Amino acid sequence: MAKKFEHEIEVKGHLIDSLILTKIFDIIMDLNGEFQVQEFTVGKRKKDESYAKIIIQGKSQQHLNQILEAVYREGATSKIQQQIALKPAPKDMVMPDDFYSTTNNHTEVFYKAKWVKVENMMMDKCVVVKSNRAFCTPIRQVKKGDTIVVGERGIRVTPPERPREGVNLFQFMGSGSSSERPTQHIARKVAQDIYKTKKQGGKIVLVGGPAIVHTGASDSIATLIKFGFIDAVLAGNALAVHDIEYSTLGTSLGMNVRDGTLAIRGHRNHMQAINSVFKAGSISKMVQKRMLTKGIMYECVRKNVPFVLAGSLRDDGPLPDVLTDMTIAQRKYKEVLKDAKMVIMIATMLHSIATGNMLPADVKVIVVDINQPTVTKLMDRGTWQALGIVTDVGAFLPLVTQEIQKLIK
Amino acid sequence: MAKKFEHEIEVKGHLIDSLILTKIFDIIMDLNGEFQVQEFTVGKRKKDESYAKIIIQGKSQQHLNQILEAVYREGATSKIQQQIALKPAPKDMVMPDDFYSTTNNHTEVFYKAKWVKVENMMMDKCVVVKSNRAFCTPIRQVKKGDTIVVGERGIRVTPPERPREGVNLFQFMGSGSSSERPTQHIARKVAQDIYKTKKQGGKIVLVGGPAIVHTGASDSIATLIKFGFIDAVLAGNALAVHDIEYSTLGTSLGMNVRDGTLAIRGHRNHMQAINSVFKAGSISKMVQKRMLTKGIMYECVRKNVPFVLAGSLRDDGPLPDVLTDMTIAQRKYKEVLKDAKMVIMIATMLHSIATGNMLPADVKVIVVDINQPTVTKLMDRGTWQALGIVTDVGAFLPLVTQEIQKLIK
Amino acid sequence: MAKKFEHEIEVKGHLIDSLILTKIFDIIMDLNGEFQVQEFTVGKRKKDESYAKIIIQGKSQQHLNQILEAVYREGATSKIQQQIALKPAPKDMVMPDDFYSTTNNHTEVFYKAKWVKVENMMMDKCVVVKSNRAFCTPIRQVKKGDTIVVGERGIRVTPPERPREGVNLFQFMGSGSSSERPTQHIARKVAQDIYKTKKQGGKIVLVGGPAIVHTGASDSIATLIKFGFIDAVLAGNALAVHDIEYSTLGTSLGMNVRDGTLAIRGHRNHMQAINSVFKAGSISKMVQKRMLTKGIMYECVRKNVPFVLAGSLRDDGPLPDVLTDMTIAQRKYKEVLKDAKMVIMIATMLHSIATGNMLPADVKVIVVDINQPTVTKLMDRGTWQALGIVTDVGAFLPLVTQEIQKLIK
Amino acid sequence: MAKKFEHEIEVKGHLIDSLILTKIFDIIMDLNGEFQVQEFTVGKRKKDESYAKIIIQGKSQQHLNQILEAVYREGATSKIQQQIALKPAPKDMVMPDDFYSTTNNHTEVFYKAKWVKVENMMMDKCVVVKSNRAFCTPIRQVKKGDTIVVGERGIRVTPPERPREGVNLFQFMGSGSSSERPTQHIARKVAQDIYKTKKQGGKIVLVGGPAIVHTGASDSIATLIKFGFIDAVLAGNALAVHDIEYSTLGTSLGMNVRDGTLAIRGHRNHMQAINSVFKAGSISKMVQKRMLTKGIMYECVRKNVPFVLAGSLRDDGPLPDVLTDMTIAQRKYKEVLKDAKMVIMIATMLHSIATGNMLPADVKVIVVDINQPTVTKLMDRGTWQALGIVTDVGAFLPLVTQEIQKLIK
Repeated sequence: MAKKFEHEIEVKGHLIDSLILTKIFDIIMDLNGEFQVQEFTVGKRKKDESYAKIIIQGKSQQHLNQILEAVYREGATSKIQQQIALKPAPKDMVMPDDFYSTTNNHTEVFYKAKWVKVENMMMDKCVVVKSNRAFCTPIRQVKKGDTIVVGERGIRVTPPERPREGVNLFQFMGSGSSSERPTQHIARKVAQDIYKTKKQGGKIVLVGGPAIVHTGASDSIATLIKFGFIDAVLAGNALAVHDIEYSTLGTSLGMNVRDGTLAIRGHRNHMQAINSVFKAGSISKMVQKRMLTKGIMYECVRKNVPFVLAGSLRDDGPLPDVLTDMTIAQRKYKEVLKDAKMVIMIATMLHSIATGNMLPADVKVIVVDINQPTVTKLMDRGTWQALGIVTDVGAFLPLVTQEIQKLIK
Repeated sequence: MAKKFEHEIEVKGHLIDSLILTKIFDIIMDLNGEFQVQEFTVGKRKKDESYAKIIIQGKSQQHLNQILEAVYREGATSKIQQQIALKPAPKDMVMPDDFYSTTNNHTEVFYKAKWVKVENMMMDKCVVVKSNRAFCTPIRQVKKGDTIVVGERGIRVTPPERPREGVNLFQFMGSGSSSERPTQHIARKVAQDIYKTKKQGGKIVLVGGPAIVHTGASDSIATLIKFGFIDAVLAGNALAVHDIEYSTLGTSLGMNVRDGTLAIRGHRNHMQAINSVFKAGSISKMVQKRMLTKGIMYECVRKNVPFVLAGSLRDDGPLPDVLTDMTIAQRKYKEVLKDAKMVIMIATMLHSIATGNMLPADVKVIVVDINQPTVTKLMDRGTWQALGIVTDVGAFLPLVTQEIQKLIK
Repeated sequence: MAKKFEHEIEVKGHLIDSLILTKIFDIIMDLNGEFQVQEFTVGKRKKDESYAKIIIQGKSQQHLNQILEAVYREGATSKIQQQIALKPAPKDMVMPDDFYSTTNNHTEVFYKAKWVKVENMMMDKCVVVKSNRAFCTPIRQVKKGDTIVVGERGIRVTPPERPREGVNLFQFMGSGSSSERPTQHIARKVAQDIYKTKKQGGKIVLVGGPAIVHTGASDSIATLIKFGFIDAVLAGNALAVHDIEYSTLGTSLGMNVRDGTLAIRGHRNHMQAINSVFKAGSISKMVQKRMLTKGIMYECVRKNVPFVLAGSLRDDGPLPDVLTDMTIAQRKYKEVLKDAKMVIMIATMLHSIATGNMLPADVKVIVVDINQPTVTKLMDRGTWQALGIVTDVGAFLPLVTQEIQKLIK
Repeated sequence: MAKKFEHEIEVKGHLIDSLILTKIFDIIMDLNGEFQVQEFTVGKRKKDESYAKIIIQGKSQQHLNQILEAVYREGATSKIQQQIALKPAPKDMVMPDDFYSTTNNHTEVFYKAKWVKVENMMMDKCVVVKSNRAFCTPIRQVKKGDTIVVGERGIRVTPPERPREGVNLFQFMGSGSSSERPTQHIARKVAQDIYKTKKQGGKIVLVGGPAIVHTGASDSIATLIKFGFIDAVLAGNALAVHDIEYSTLGTSLGMNVRDGTLAIRGHRNHMQAINSVFKAGSISKMVQKRMLTKGIMYECVRKNVPFVLAGSLRDDGPLPDVLTDMTIAQRKYKEVLKDAKMVIMIATMLHSIATGNMLPADVKVIVVDINQPTVTKLMDRGTWQALGIVTDVGAFLPLVTQEIQKLIK
């Protein structure tokens, strides 16, 4: 047999439990490489980490490099550490050809003989190194001359551990999403998780779509905000418009929510709500002028809970509070998401995927939607840590709020 | 222009409101016929019926006949009434070639100069005339020599009126099904509808799948039975098995419903439940022996609510109570459905479509499922009067039961 | 009985066939009004219009007015025609309180004793009257002092006729959407419809999402553009990025489309494609520089087919060609949609609903998506004329293109 | 710390690659046990097996036993092998209380100092030992006195290896199912897999629902049968009825498949097809009498491909060929499935889940359905090895057949 090109890598952590080793072996085999396990120490107790030293063999230096680059992304590191390669950005908003494209996992770069943490971690971005710090940077923020990491060397990725110890919500559900689960029990678990996260001072961000209002769950969300369980709200124009229609006119899509009758000229209520905000000048001015006295947006204003309304192509209006430029909206979303411990995404694929793209992989994400493909799609887009709950928002959220109210007492 | 072949038909009822006339005009045009409206009296008030006399023209006698046959199915009748044509069945379980295939609408046949009501109305069956009565008859019950209606003459079909007067549940939802509706309000409406139907002495039949148990809604259904709101339960093996697993072992698919932990050897519980029924001999014997003391099946036995468990190819076991022969199961289902005023179908496509096939079109049908295509499919299969509610059974049914309990007080 | 408040209305058109009368009667009854049909002339032949004169009665003048306002929206007009009421906009981007909110149906206003057509028809907007013309106007384009129609008087709405004569695609499918239809036949019909529309000089606009590329259907769309069947493309960042990834690197989401193997460092390809456009400056510059030589975007540039890429919150990049401000993107979409005869929406809920909102009700809309709720949601949002095809885009579009290629020969 | 109750287990195979070890560690931790890895040899090359020796610790003997029982099910075996425990069945159709409930994995029992393979492996059954052989046995076939395995000792379960070596279809798709995959490529892979399986003499069974006919894919399936790629067909009444309606009358649900027009009295065609089979006596007699000359059922008869039609509660008719007793139908399905290498399940949840229950875990299963929850549900029910393809059957199957025809040449 021909000469082998080989390289030694090592990897540590909960290798078996968190599937890290499985993924590494998968990659080597998918790319037709070979491997030999040199050393393997398995954590003998639950909390112990495992360690593996593996020699990877390729058919050529290039083949070997390709395999190495792929396994580095999954948490492997070279035994002999090499410094990252850097190249300057040739122009504003242009990365060097061979730029390193980020994952949403915790990442470090080996720079000047030290491991430097990449700040502001998100997926599908590049890494800019500046005065001994490393920043995860979107392409549109790249400036000519920024020194950008290229290739895959000198990079250490740490996939998050799977949450363990006792049956918690995330374990309970498995990795998948299913509608065949005891709904009331799940609502209780979600409530406990919110309550506990908040008690420990964790930041909780809500991402929501208008179906919260259509399905009659807006009172539940307003209550959560009122009681201090939500630290920020990320949404679009529609959630705000429908919330304000419901809060000021009592209707959702023109139907009286109280008794299900059709409101007179109810078809106008949607536009009427939009007009009333323009008339006041903004949502917070509506609250000041006592034109808006309840609901999700009202509680946000009253409790100083920041909200960001990102525009979308399908907006009616949109409201004066809506950020119509996506570059600005993305930046504001990202600011609000900083240091979030838990993100609850409800009935909105657009804002959920957008938010998922901005989150590091170790933030807890709960996605609630009645449509299973929506949940699947979010996970397929890389937010694989998400816990998917396929349920009816209008019935589920009131249960969660009830459970939280029990916990408060 | 060539000679026209024409025939005068008439039709009465809520022609416009119930779309009867729209359908008749559609058919004529789809079949490239022509028509002239000779007379048209529109009901001047809500309760008044409308009447229309229309001349239909075809390109040949055969073409005309084809159009006539199609419009008769939608409620039109020939001005000059002709007696139905009858032919004997050539063999057991064989209908004459030109047999009339039924709809699920109220149907009469013109026989010996009188309109005779067809009994036991279902769709896709034939009509057997015997000693001046007419019976809707499935092919497997046809006996050699039975006189069977052939062709489309002498038949009067009366499509049901759309329910009117005040905004009731059925109007509220429109014809379609959607997940974007105020869930709590709908639960209230369904509760009122059940309560009112029962108060008026109407028979209510529940058709249910195992997701009732998986999603944690079995206590709600058990309560409805206990309080006398359900007159019969139609299901399969799985609902009973899961209900008994939950009632005797506290688990659903091996998970402790109380606290969401995995039960020790929980994977066996499903089969354990089946074995325990075989050991007792039957479900009612389990109740007698106090081996089963709560749940849906228990309440059925205790309240003498008849239940029919129809087998299916995917059954584990199945339980001794399950009818494994489909011909027998269909007959038992049909018996139980006799005179039902309302049928509530929950989270089971198989049993829902089966039941839908057995129901005349004027029985109220409520379908609850989290999967929209399931609801759509039921309607596409001919049970178009069904009200589809796309929701999470595990959150929705407890709401309905709560609302009913409020109404009782 | 108390004195009745009444008013005479009239309505004409294909009243029965297009359900106009059914809707009017529905509204009167839902609002607890009464009516008497004074005159009713039914079109005696297929092409004849019907006419009805109806007296509507309410319990008070206000009740009557409410009913009248609702029926006017469905096509009824007052026997005694009154001029529209106008009020000035109190501020920029603020409509007068009682503004008339538009439908997407053809609309006229009775102004200075004449019926004036409202231009640029869309739903959920207001109507600005200026120098004897009337313009459908979004709230953000309202200027202080604009004279805006208020109330519901003097407005004539004409719902579109249902397409008739021969079994065409729209009839064939019925009003609903279903996955249980002969796919190959539907593909043939869609192809014929595209071919015929184009032959008659009709403008066809394509609205598409990235699943076109993921499912392997981009060659089919590129071919349609190349052969001149598509006059404009409306999309977002993702379709362009994935198309360019596929065209330049041969992968979709990092997988080699040719043989299904994973590309080396394929996860970067998505960002690599984005970077290459930034490097070139724009998509059309990529084509000029021969860096992009095939695919959907390439064919658009080469054939001078205008494309508008609207930004969204979830964009990676986005590409320099993407309009990141939604107000601008909406305006550009609307410009491109002007005079479109047919709009084909493929696998994108966001852009489809956005486009639907901008279209008058008489434009043919075909929606193709594998997820039934997406199709339903579009229709629920008001684009009820849409023909929904629930299928796999990756298998369906190649069939459509094949059929069109047969028609060309 | 208190005294530990401990036991040594060992496990071998592709422990990491096939997630066996991950599952074992999960179970121990979920059940609050502890473990120490004593020995761990990792396969150094792709084909090498790994081996682990682990000491498991519980809080009490009972706790330890519970953990052991759970890990044995995942492939672990006790270091000191103990013979299985056996108890007689107390009655016909009653298992002893502590019966061992099977998985669908390859299973052996340690009996008389030897490992004995359990024959006829299926999930959720018991194991009967008879004259040194072990049989997987459904509860209804248990006879009084049968010696049945109880407890979890002396049982060795071997989870199947994940298919490896080169990117094959099963790897390509990952474990999940998604609609966002290149359809034409997947069709090609499926075709290659069918072709290769057949070439190697492997038995291929098709499980299909009526949507094959409704979506216009029946010609494709008929062709596959004709060319010898299908060894058996498992279906229900509906597939046969619709196939025969289409083959004899040219319609599907009353619509002419050729041109999409509505057939005259087309609503009857469904029942007409059923009647024609009753008239002939059976499907094969229809073929003999040349009343049926094409289609899926015709090809089955002509090519002597066995078909089993299992009845269901929703059947019209059902046809004389349909097995209406589920116990018999299950037995016949099982017979036909014997030694199958590949099972293709198309657009039928009922028959797919039923078939899945009867299959050992190492049979290749491909599930094709347009509705993602259907695919998910099958996997949730235990047929986790299934490859789910979310696509439109009417467009996908013709592609598969085309690809196979290319391979034949």
